[in-house]
Amino acid sequence: MLLYNSAVSGNCWKVRQMLAHLGIRADETIEPSPEEVAARDAATVGREALDQDRPLELRELDVLDRSDRGSVLGALSPVLRVPVLVLDDGRPLFESNAIIDFLAEGTPYLPADAYERQQVLAWQFFEQYEIEPNLAVARFHRLFDVEPPPGLMAQKQAAGRRGLEALERGLAGRDFLVAGRYTVADISLYGYTHVAAEGGFDLEPYPWTRAWLDRVAAQPGHLLITD
Amino acid sequence: MLLYNSAVSGNCWKVRQMLAHLGIRADETIEPSPEEVAARDAATVGREALDQDRPLELRELDVLDRSDRGSVLGALSPVLRVPVLVLDDGRPLFESNAIIDFLAEGTPYLPADAYERQQVLAWQFFEQYEIEPNLAVARFHRLFDVEPPPGLMAQKQAAGRRGLEALERGLAGRDFLVAGRYTVADISLYGYTHVAAEGGFDLEPYPWTRAWLDRVAAQPGHLLITD
Repeated sequence: MLLYNSAVSGNCWKVRQMLAHLGIRADETIEPSPEEVAARDAATVGREALDQDRPLELRELDVLDRSDRGSVLGALSPVLRVPVLVLDDGRPLFESNAIIDFLAEGTPYLPADAYERQQVLAWQFFEQYEIEPNLAVARFHRLFDVEPPPGLMAQKQAAGRRGLEALERGLAGRDFLVAGRYTVADISLYGYTHVAAEGGFDLEPYPWTRAWLDRVAAQPGHLLITD
Repeated sequence: MLLYNSAVSGNCWKVRQMLAHLGIRADETIEPSPEEVAARDAATVGREALDQDRPLELRELDVLDRSDRGSVLGALSPVLRVPVLVLDDGRPLFESNAIIDFLAEGTPYLPADAYERQQVLAWQFFEQYEIEPNLAVARFHRLFDVEPPPGLMAQKQAAGRRGLEALERGLAGRDFLVAGRYTVADISLYGYTHVAAEGGFDLEPYPWTRAWLDRVAAQPGHLLITD
């Protein structure tokens, strides 16, 4: 499989993390754990794509100079953004949360119960609506020292805090977002929440969120965004 | 079932439209078509919830005065936004796209094929990331004459046009977004695209999108947002 990637992107991290849970990594020197091999065996979709021992190929795209997005991604994704995962048969997948749900089907990372699946999706849509557009954009301007349009940062800070408050309400009294266990919902929300500080967000007011971040980071096979 | 609703919301329209495709409406005087009864019989999840002939109950929330969202929705949804659909057993569903996917499971409106399902989700995530936040917000400020923060409308117009361009690329040469037929992906994207003009967006440059809007509106059981 080929992943059009950006090393700093929380969206791309989600895909690398889900693939790692299936024992598929760019680094060939890391042997899949028995748990990862079992998850890959359980995967019910994209089976052909997963049933191979070739390492993941990464193609890194520039975060700042996006002038090549049309020529590189145009035939693969109408939205011209990373991540795009190309299966071995050439079929491209776009949108990070939709990619990891595809990969997780049949594994413990995506619940089989209809109501729990609805909750997983609800959290993932929330992530793309209230977390990513605020936390990731604020982080981008700070990390890369790109001057934001006037007023943008204040707006992103306020909206991002509202998103973090909603996440905190969802995590209150819970170990994980859905089904009492670690799922793709946690992977999706972890992507940008765990680097919130890089966007100037203080997680001090969100104790349930902080405990959950630690719990996700303690999962077997956890991948650092810098890995 | 009880739907916390806003009559003008494209997100709430999606849920009312999907329910109508299953013959479930607030208006008791409309008899479900044989096609709608068949779709309801095919629904594999939330079966108990769908297997009843009571009309849909709507509870309208104010678009401008949102001060009651916490007290009304707090126990039902961490994100405190409509739509929220409460099943007859009391379980709440939040996030419009996640709700309609739940309702559509097993019906022709949600493909069974893994790759097609991935494409449906990808378009729905795109909708919440690039269409809704731009088209719906611009529309809100114009429809309700609410003064936007400085610079916001120009930013929403530019980002909304990028979203519409991506949608046009996705629809080029196609009758529908996924699987060659009308699915929940079309319902999700139609929600705000068909009222783009109310947000000040001109659809003239997007002929594939305009033809697709007509095609969606011609579906049996199509619901107007004003219905």
